[in-house]
Amino acid sequence: MAQRFDVLVIGGGPGGYVAAIRAAQLGLTVACCESNPYADPKGEPRLGGTCLNVGCIPSKALLHTSHLFAEAAHGFAAQGISVGAPAIDVPTMIGRKNAIVDQLTSGIRGLFKKNKVTLLKGHGAFAGGGEGAWQVRVGEETVAAGQVIVATGSRARHLPGVPVDHKLVCDNAGALDIDAVPKRLAIVGAGVIGLEMGSVWRRLGAEVTILEALPDFLAVADADVAKEAAKLFRKQGLDIRLGVTIGEVKTSKKGVSVAYADKTGAAQHLEADRLIVSIGRVPNTDGLAAEVVGLKLDERGRVEVDAHCRTNLPGVWAVGDVVRGPMLAHKAMEEAVMVAERIAGQAGHCNLDTIPWVLYTSPEIAWVGRTEQQLKADGVTYKAGRIPFAANGRALGMGETAGFVKMLADARTDRILGVHVIGANASELIAEAVVAMEFGAASEDLARICHAHPTLSEVMHEAALACDGRPLHF
Amino acid sequence: MAQRFDVLVIGGGPGGYVAAIRAAQLGLTVACCESNPYADPKGEPRLGGTCLNVGCIPSKALLHTSHLFAEAAHGFAAQGISVGAPAIDVPTMIGRKNAIVDQLTSGIRGLFKKNKVTLLKGHGAFAGGGEGAWQVRVGEETVAAGQVIVATGSRARHLPGVPVDHKLVCDNAGALDIDAVPKRLAIVGAGVIGLEMGSVWRRLGAEVTILEALPDFLAVADADVAKEAAKLFRKQGLDIRLGVTIGEVKTSKKGVSVAYADKTGAAQHLEADRLIVSIGRVPNTDGLAAEVVGLKLDERGRVEVDAHCRTNLPGVWAVGDVVRGPMLAHKAMEEAVMVAERIAGQAGHCNLDTIPWVLYTSPEIAWVGRTEQQLKADGVTYKAGRIPFAANGRALGMGETAGFVKMLADARTDRILGVHVIGANASELIAEAVVAMEFGAASEDLARICHAHPTLSEVMHEAALACDGRPLHF
Repeated sequence: MAQRFDVLVIGGGPGGYVAAIRAAQLGLTVACCESNPYADPKGEPRLGGTCLNVGCIPSKALLHTSHLFAEAAHGFAAQGISVGAPAIDVPTMIGRKNAIVDQLTSGIRGLFKKNKVTLLKGHGAFAGGGEGAWQVRVGEETVAAGQVIVATGSRARHLPGVPVDHKLVCDNAGALDIDAVPKRLAIVGAGVIGLEMGSVWRRLGAEVTILEALPDFLAVADADVAKEAAKLFRKQGLDIRLGVTIGEVKTSKKGVSVAYADKTGAAQHLEADRLIVSIGRVPNTDGLAAEVVGLKLDERGRVEVDAHCRTNLPGVWAVGDVVRGPMLAHKAMEEAVMVAERIAGQAGHCNLDTIPWVLYTSPEIAWVGRTEQQLKADGVTYKAGRIPFAANGRALGMGETAGFVKMLADARTDRILGVHVIGANASELIAEAVVAMEFGAASEDLARICHAHPTLSEVMHEAALACDGRPLHF
Repeated sequence: MAQRFDVLVIGGGPGGYVAAIRAAQLGLTVACCESNPYADPKGEPRLGGTCLNVGCIPSKALLHTSHLFAEAAHGFAAQGISVGAPAIDVPTMIGRKNAIVDQLTSGIRGLFKKNKVTLLKGHGAFAGGGEGAWQVRVGEETVAAGQVIVATGSRARHLPGVPVDHKLVCDNAGALDIDAVPKRLAIVGAGVIGLEMGSVWRRLGAEVTILEALPDFLAVADADVAKEAAKLFRKQGLDIRLGVTIGEVKTSKKGVSVAYADKTGAAQHLEADRLIVSIGRVPNTDGLAAEVVGLKLDERGRVEVDAHCRTNLPGVWAVGDVVRGPMLAHKAMEEAVMVAERIAGQAGHCNLDTIPWVLYTSPEIAWVGRTEQQLKADGVTYKAGRIPFAANGRALGMGETAGFVKMLADARTDRILGVHVIGANASELIAEAVVAMEFGAASEDLARICHAHPTLSEVMHEAALACDGRPLHF
């Protein structure tokens, strides 16, 4: 007889495993299926999804190592620290990264055990059923569940006709496992992944060229932030070429050759030892057999959901990269908790307007809420407070004075509408802005809250003061 | 004729200069007097007070350098970075620190100019007058002011009979200017300054012994945090001896000899090349001529003030280290803004219950609100959520997994009563807890706010979830 669960979660990434754990905490019987072994030596399915196995977590480990390497090479002398020219042993760096991934993926297995979530090994696809009794094929078996949560995530989009061999041509996964510093690294796509991976290998000595189709750099960010970022990244040696059209990509024993038209339309060639393709991600719905049960997808192949992540089918939900909204692990987790709680009869919610964005470049970039250009497009009258890190004692002490905090508040109500940070530790500094926005804070509120001295968070404080034209330290 | 100002601020430290700037922003004519040249080569008075010249700011510069040094010595190999054994050039390190201090002190001069604050060079002391027309002697002149803000700060307490020569025997100032790594460094007092300076020189290779009179380590912090800190600091090689009674201190060409009784009462001797005395700070009221105008001091020599920093005299206010409350620069700044706004007829306030505390050790320690032992003493029923950094992907990526976040919330209302952090970046992580507490947040509020992944702030999120027994990642 088929196994039956209150809830079956398809996919063990951040959206899936969190949904499974939360549903189990609420007293439901829960299974989660996962088929991807990633780099598991035994071929066992691994929990954590893209984020943990080939995304956020391993990239942060490499970013940390390469940041220290760059500090040793360029920042130590001014501080009075002398070391010889630093050398990088790439296999050790990669090995440490892999150990962190191993620890965390097995940690999630432990959390499943602790919370009594059943892990099913195998790919999940709808097999039939209806309200209250869905059937999902997991590998060779068919499992029955009252509620199904689709959390199948996304995969890297590849260039048409350019196979990813994970050696010469890599996507996000291969970019994390390059076994030696390439002399010349080409990257197609100047999004989060392209910039993070470009930063890692640039710091370790590669000549990095990034080709981007869009005419504007980092168009998703606030324009001031994007402008500052472009300036800083170019200073670090990232050769960023915008408005290009990729042509033929040829691989040979010598490396990769990318033909492209530059922004003027002129034909160009880029020769490199490696190519990373980071041109966006595709939702994983093609193996889901959505058509078997009539699960509705949108025009981009994503599962169509409402604000509560309900699909068109009763008792079928979808969360994370496979639905609309930013493809961010913490957004998936928020949706996961909401869905689990709604299944259990609670009132979970997910506010997409306060999901923070982070780029772990150097300096880091983070924001929450709307950009200045979005406010203009929305016809909102706003005021802005912008304070550079160069005016901050802690930033000076760290020798990391690049960037700024820019706060945008409603001109009439003073409510904070967006906070944009480019600078050291932006990823952590954004937390207080998210909390403030969730409380509907005015810039005056943050201006009147004590910030520890000396910390980088004082720049946030000053930006709030600056919204009212009264910064104390600028 | 005497110069006359709406507001005269006595002292140019964080309390004083911020009061002066804020009062000037509000349209008042403002002067600020300062006499201390600190290390100014021309003997000119320097703004910024203890904090900027010989406190928070320079110590953070040295902590940063020494942290990188320790990383290079102990943390690089595991990441695959090979460098030779690092060497420290102390004068370069100190020179960089001095350059940062120079930049910031002259920055405050620039802020005075921008905000039209008159800087008066000279020591300020009351000369007479009364409501609406106080007279203050500043150096050779007498200045008249409608309102006076006393912001004279504090100075290091010294051991009786042990002169501080800033060579063999240092206080906080000298500890920042030691010209070579001492082989054996003795520190009396295991408070913030003793621990930070001990950390700096320990990381650079000194054998550091800290003698503390109190039987409990870091009694001001939450007991769990103090316990973890003691364990970690001892592992780093800080030899911390508690419950001691300091006896005779002798200096000679060979160094310093400290006689003391250990916690059992047994006589002990500590031989060292240098001694740092960090046994607390004394409010600077003795040069103020408080008696001339009848300004009331308390039994500890501080200016007595109410919740709005009003003294017993109409139009005389006092802020910062010279009044009750924690001796923290950001607390002084909060009071400074409050007083300036009250003088201008506004309703400034300062909430001493949400002033964050920070120790810039490694790992950092920060907290806001009450400790568990305070809640017990106050008879409050509470719940606690405690999550280790070892469960956090970002901490793993950084290789900084020590410590935890502990959140304390009212058992009945769920309101957050205290947040205690020991771990990487605690100084920045505490900001969201302060914001949350200022909004009267429940632990449930932080549990329901999205935190970017992967960040250290997720440990705060999980601690909030753990208050309700439902952590997702632990």
